[in-house]
Amino acid sequence: MPASTQRPPRFLQACRGEAADRTPIWLMRQAGRYMAEYRALRAKHSMLEVIRTPELAAEITLQPINAFDLDAAIIFSDILPPLTGMGLDLEFVKGHGPRLNNPIRSTYAIDVLATPPAAESMGGTLDAIRLVKPELEARGVPLIGFAGAPFTLASYAIEGGGSKTYAQTKTMMYTEPAAWKRLMNKLVTVVADLLAEQARAGVDVLQVFDSWAGALGRLDYIRYVQPYNRVLYQRLEKIGLPVINFSTGTAAYLDAVAEAGGDVVGVDWRLPLDAAWSRIGPGRAIMGNLDPVTLFAPWRELRHHVADVLQRAAGRPGHIFNLGHGILPETPVDAVRRLVDYVHEQTAVGAVEEV
Amino acid sequence: MPASTQRPPRFLQACRGEAADRTPIWLMRQAGRYMAEYRALRAKHSMLEVIRTPELAAEITLQPINAFDLDAAIIFSDILPPLTGMGLDLEFVKGHGPRLNNPIRSTYAIDVLATPPAAESMGGTLDAIRLVKPELEARGVPLIGFAGAPFTLASYAIEGGGSKTYAQTKTMMYTEPAAWKRLMNKLVTVVADLLAEQARAGVDVLQVFDSWAGALGRLDYIRYVQPYNRVLYQRLEKIGLPVINFSTGTAAYLDAVAEAGGDVVGVDWRLPLDAAWSRIGPGRAIMGNLDPVTLFAPWRELRHHVADVLQRAAGRPGHIFNLGHGILPETPVDAVRRLVDYVHEQTAVGAVEEV
Repeated sequence: MPASTQRPPRFLQACRGEAADRTPIWLMRQAGRYMAEYRALRAKHSMLEVIRTPELAAEITLQPINAFDLDAAIIFSDILPPLTGMGLDLEFVKGHGPRLNNPIRSTYAIDVLATPPAAESMGGTLDAIRLVKPELEARGVPLIGFAGAPFTLASYAIEGGGSKTYAQTKTMMYTEPAAWKRLMNKLVTVVADLLAEQARAGVDVLQVFDSWAGALGRLDYIRYVQPYNRVLYQRLEKIGLPVINFSTGTAAYLDAVAEAGGDVVGVDWRLPLDAAWSRIGPGRAIMGNLDPVTLFAPWRELRHHVADVLQRAAGRPGHIFNLGHGILPETPVDAVRRLVDYVHEQTAVGAVEEV
Repeated sequence: MPASTQRPPRFLQACRGEAADRTPIWLMRQAGRYMAEYRALRAKHSMLEVIRTPELAAEITLQPINAFDLDAAIIFSDILPPLTGMGLDLEFVKGHGPRLNNPIRSTYAIDVLATPPAAESMGGTLDAIRLVKPELEARGVPLIGFAGAPFTLASYAIEGGGSKTYAQTKTMMYTEPAAWKRLMNKLVTVVADLLAEQARAGVDVLQVFDSWAGALGRLDYIRYVQPYNRVLYQRLEKIGLPVINFSTGTAAYLDAVAEAGGDVVGVDWRLPLDAAWSRIGPGRAIMGNLDPVTLFAPWRELRHHVADVLQRAAGRPGHIFNLGHGILPETPVDAVRRLVDYVHEQTAVGAVEEV
């Protein structure tokens, strides 16, 4: 058995705020287009096909684990497929990303949204977890399950895709507060159930992605989003696994984002890591926060950015190294390898001293 | 003569941090698609035609002044036309916004960028200022001239249009720091000259739009952008007019944005106004910060947001009411009228007490 299975994996230690032998690192969207193996598989299968076929999702989940010395795997899926079970027609349009063909444009559309059990609507992802888990366990690599946060899912459901202004989402929120409440409550139900089922299927850590929460002002976040996130994180607490609360663009109210819950708070690159850590509270674990675009920089510049993140973490327990958002499709593979190894190398001092 | 010409217009008083009889209000992109008069004129003339024809630009500048009790006009133009003088091929694509057909993709492309005098390349806008100024002066309404900030212009020039990740801009910045410096210096030259010429043509206040600065992390902003903004604001100081330093998405380093210069700092809606004001320093004037989407809300909800901004300004001199970004094309005209009148009405107390 590899040495790493003799004590809890460092990723799980860091999630609990415990000291680890090195700073753990994984990368959001680490199984993605920047890898030739991924592109080869995706050339033969559509996005939804891959997500719904356990063997394919399991294979893609392992690709970055095979290629790099990463400290966690994340089950290959997407935050949007749970919306299909609710009644929305999801399509991944080549070169354009996801699109919902029947976006929510009325309170009636909210009333008729279904909340089927995840075991029924997300069976492919749950089976993929069961399939890949033993392989990862043998290597001592923990597996992350995930879901979108209610606001981010509501935004997709209402806008039908990406948005610059989130005008339709906010208008629904301002104009139909009772319907907004019903929508957010339905999403809390679906997301909490999905994450509970992923836990049952074998994941070790749960992550909630609130990628679009940064569209809001602080007061609107506190009024229209935070209460639902609180309920969600309270439910997730009962599952007993570490929970990562991730958002981007929320520097103006990171304290309020963190207050909603989660053991680990994932942050983007806009605030330096130490400033972000002091806003979320020094007692919480933190995940982040390299700008994904720095991976396009020459090593000298990239290293400068990585070293800055590590210096600001100052070796305190509870830091998980990650990007501030998903890795970009054009990222050079060599930069990823160098990043992962450098983070381990630079933070190995503790392990040496332990001996 | 109208009463408002008997003392300095309240907008200019607020720019200087002086007490005014009411809180002045104007709206970014106040001459725009939400107005039927604007749509009627634009149905007959393309965007570039309007910008380059002084009579049309002057007419559009006056449209919102005729329709609402606004405290400032802004010359109708766009931040991108100065790039055409530098050698970039700008097009406004219907339904898609601006596009540069020959974006900067090499250091050579930076070296060959021209820096023609604004009098030569932006004559239409300068003539429009001269044409509209007497009309506005007769009504006691100050006129704002403007330009894009170097980073935002560089991003457009490199990406060729909008971007989610600004990957090409940041890659240029990280990979070719010497070329980045040359590009930013050229943009400082062009922008400073354009604003100086606008001042000479008759505007009363200058605004610099750094709409995309929020893509950066704090350290990159300080390293790659702030030094150029400092030089720019130092040059603008010599002109002698009040200068507004506007950006969005910069809550993580608003203090550093403000430090670069400007008499007034324009902020988006993400931070509550009082929090933003304390970060930029209580001695500076502030402009903002209503979320443009609140104009789609019922009056009760919109009023709640407007009242919150006013309460946080707490009647302190130096607050200019505005949106946190440009008004959206679908905004109801009635909401705009109600907003403008409400801000005046709610802040008229001081004037009454003066009597």
